[in-house]
This record gives sequence, C-alpha cells and structure tokens, in this order.
Amino acid sequence: MRIAADNLRITDPVIAVAIAQLDPGPITQMIRHCENAGADWIDINCGPLTRNPEQGMAFLVETACAATRLPILLDTANPRALAAGLSVSTNPAIINGFSLEPEKVARILPLAKQHHCDIIGFLLYPDSQVPMDEEGLISVLLDLYAAFQRAGLDDAQLIIDPVLAPLIWADGAAHNRHLLAILRNLPELIGFPARTIAGLSNLSAGNMPRGVKQRLQRSFLPMLAAAGLTCVLMDVLDHEAVQTARACNAMLQPGIFAWNG
Amino acid sequence: MRIAADNLRITDPVIAVAIAQLDPGPITQMIRHCENAGADWIDINCGPLTRNPEQGMAFLVETACAATRLPILLDTANPRALAAGLSVSTNPAIINGFSLEPEKVARILPLAKQHHCDIIGFLLYPDSQVPMDEEGLISVLLDLYAAFQRAGLDDAQLIIDPVLAPLIWADGAAHNRHLLAILRNLPELIGFPARTIAGLSNLSAGNMPRGVKQRLQRSFLPMLAAAGLTCVLMDVLDHEAVQTARACNAMLQPGIFAWNG
Repeated sequence: MRIAADNLRITDPVIAVAIAQLDPGPITQMIRHCENAGADWIDINCGPLTRNPEQGMAFLVETACAATRLPILLDTANPRALAAGLSVSTNPAIINGFSLEPEKVARILPLAKQHHCDIIGFLLYPDSQVPMDEEGLISVLLDLYAAFQRAGLDDAQLIIDPVLAPLIWADGAAHNRHLLAILRNLPELIGFPARTIAGLSNLSAGNMPRGVKQRLQRSFLPMLAAAGLTCVLMDVLDHEAVQTARACNAMLQPGIFAWNG
Repeated sequence: MRIAADNLRITDPVIAVAIAQLDPGPITQMIRHCENAGADWIDINCGPLTRNPEQGMAFLVETACAATRLPILLDTANPRALAAGLSVSTNPAIINGFSLEPEKVARILPLAKQHHCDIIGFLLYPDSQVPMDEEGLISVLLDLYAAFQRAGLDDAQLIIDPVLAPLIWADGAAHNRHLLAILRNLPELIGFPARTIAGLSNLSAGNMPRGVKQRLQRSFLPMLAAAGLTCVLMDVLDHEAVQTARACNAMLQPGIFAWNG
C-alpha cells in the first residue's frame, strides 16, 4: 500500500495565501515535509480555483515538480485547471478524478486519454450521491468502468476511489463496511486487479477532537490495507498513521517479514 | 469484539511469586487493573503448574472470583489443574483450551461437558504443529469440530483460536493472512457462526523492541476485527491498543456510530 499525502490543500490558510500570491516557498516546504515523512504520491488539492484556475494549477504543478520527483495527483473538479496542470507537469501525474457526473465524463475523462495519464474514478452516482448499498456500489462501479473504456483508456490507467463515508452519517459505518467487501472483491467484480485509493480523512469529517479523528483513521487503515487497498490518501504528517501503514505493509506483503518500526 | 486480558501470567515474576506463596494480593491487584483498563474477560495463564497444580489453579480461580465478576479463561494444559479450577469457580469459566493432540481430546475436552463450560479449540495438528496453508487449516478446523461434537458439546460452547504465528517465522506473515480469510469464512466453513479468539502477542514473539511489538499488534488488531474476530486476547494495559479495539468496535458494529475516543 502506497501513501498519498493529502496535506497540500487550499483549506490550509498558508497554502491558500501562497497560491493567491503565486509564492512557491510554502508549497515547496510542505511538499518536502511530506516526502520526508514518507509520502509516495503528493495530492495537490486546490479546490475549484475560481480565480485564474489555469494559472493557479500550472503554478502549483510547476512548483511541485521543482520540489519533488514523486507522482502528483491533480485534485480539482475544474477541467481547465486540470488541462493546464497536465500540460506543464514533468512528473508522473494522476487526475483526481472523475465520476459518472455527465460534466466529468465529458470534460475530465478525455484528459486522461489526451495526456496519457492515470485517472481516479469515484464510486458516486451521476448526481454525485453516494450509493449506500452493495448493489448500488457495484452498479456504479460497472457504469464507471464502461465510461472509462468508452474513452479509449487502458485498464492500467484506472484507479478506483470507493469514497469513504463520514462516520457521523447515519449509515456511514455500514457504508464503509460495504466498501471493504467491494475492495476485497474488486478483481472479480471488474475483471482485473484495478488499483484503488481511499481518502482516510473522509471517515472523520465533522466535529470531533483531533485525537479521536486520528484514532479512527489509524484503526480503519489496517482494515483497508487487508482488503487490498493500493494507496491511502492521508495526513502523512501523522507519524503514527504512517508507521501503522508501514506495519500493515510489512505484515501483508508476500515474502519474509522485514520491518523494524 | 471483546477484550480478554493476557496480563495475568506466570511469566510475570510478581505473579509467579504470588502463586508460589499463595499470596492473593498481587493477583487481585492485577485483575482490578485489567478490569479498569477495559478487560471483558480475564485469562489466567499459569503455565503447566508442575508443583501442586490443583492447589495452584484452585487458589488462582478463588482469588480471581473474589476480585471480579468477569468471565475467566483457565489457561493451562494440565487437565488436573483445569478440573480443580473449574470446580471452585463461581464466575463463568472458559477452558483455554484443547487441540487435536490425543491427550487433550481425551482429558481436556470432556471437562467442558462435565462442567458445562465453554472451551477454546486451537487450530493445530495432533502433534501441535501449525498448519501452514489454508487447506491444512480447514482440515484441522473440521477435525477439531468433529472431536468437539463427539464429546457431546453444544455449538454455543465452542470458541475457535486459529493461533496467530510469530511474524519472525519464515511463513508467519503469510500464515496470519490465511487466518484472516479463515476467520471471514468461518460461518460457511463450519456451518454456524462460531465464536473466535486470537492471542495478539503471538504475532510479535521474539526479539523486538516493545514499541515495535505494540505497533504490530495495534496494526493487526483492526484486520482481525474486520475479519469478524469475537474476542482478542491482548495486553489490556496497552491503552492505545484498547482504544484501537474500541474504535474498531464503533466502526464495525451495526447501528449508528457512537464513540468519543
């Protein structure tokens, strides 16, 4: 299981100011922190970028590619910003992401073909609602894969994000249990061992103390790992959670156990 | 998932001296610590009790029953010690346990019938070796259940311990991954939802720093929980691990999520 850092996000005021002022310093520093802390991928979550989206994303991607050689995830729903970022990226780039929403199928999915890059697909209904039972999830998965294939992409470019639900939702915990089963059975459901990603912070969305959020995330992480998750999107500056991910990898990978914590 | 404390063990020098001197003080204190720390069951691991096994176990059980009303696990391979302990117990008692070893089938299994108590069955070959593949595990499971049935016991009395392997064994990690699959599929394999228990400290047997052992245990615990484990036998004084178990319970149990860490 790889670790994608979710730390570079526009909801961080320091990052928001750096983007607004096109100041690479704080962004470079955050990316280096994440890489040192154990990130394998860097998610660039810049939100919708309502002002100058192309310029904002191009600036972020150029800054990221100067700071690290790690793959980057371009995390925005703005197709123009995605296109601008993909055009200037010198690192492997992953689109994060598309769903069955018609606008995303029409304008985001083709970017993966055009830029020969990987793309994350969310298990959401076309109206962006979360399917709350296993039947709904499987139907969305198959529709999503069909749309992906119609776009002329290779299976190896697809990464499925089943979209963890906040535990404070009435059916959130049950939904996340369904997702574990979906992850375990994904190779049979979709016909090949598609890669997967999940955003751990979704679990603990809402009003909870930070320590509780971290404990819930660290406790659900091994369940995702055992279900075969390829990549966890998480706070890579939570050292205990990173060590948990590494312990899981040591216990789950084939071959002789080797890890010294 | 319930928590059984493995803290009351003869390998603790203070406990060893208390047993040798029939001094209830340190034992009572340890049991109260465990109960306060969140134990649902108390394992009484007194080893083979080579000197006065009946007296030693009867003393331990009487001391435990005076200290707590929690169910106790009588953890010894000595049938005479087990019989003595079961005879004096005023708490619910569980035999820990039997295997396909002929001596255990002949002398320990009948005690569960005689004392109307639950009994733990280990997934081990008759020579006490660990089955290192899924086929071997399933074959042992079915043989163990057959022996259990021949003893005239009710399904509700059975608790399966699949026996976690030390990660330092060449195939230890792979074995433990097989066990997760066995736990998940147990209701189908054995025909009813048998209860299960696993001793978390087995994972980290060998020469590792305490912090590494704890992290491995805390990381494997959610995998066991998600696989449906009924009870984890663990160091209940590891507060983080207890909180991990509680977070798992909150996320895995049916109904509305409720936990405040």
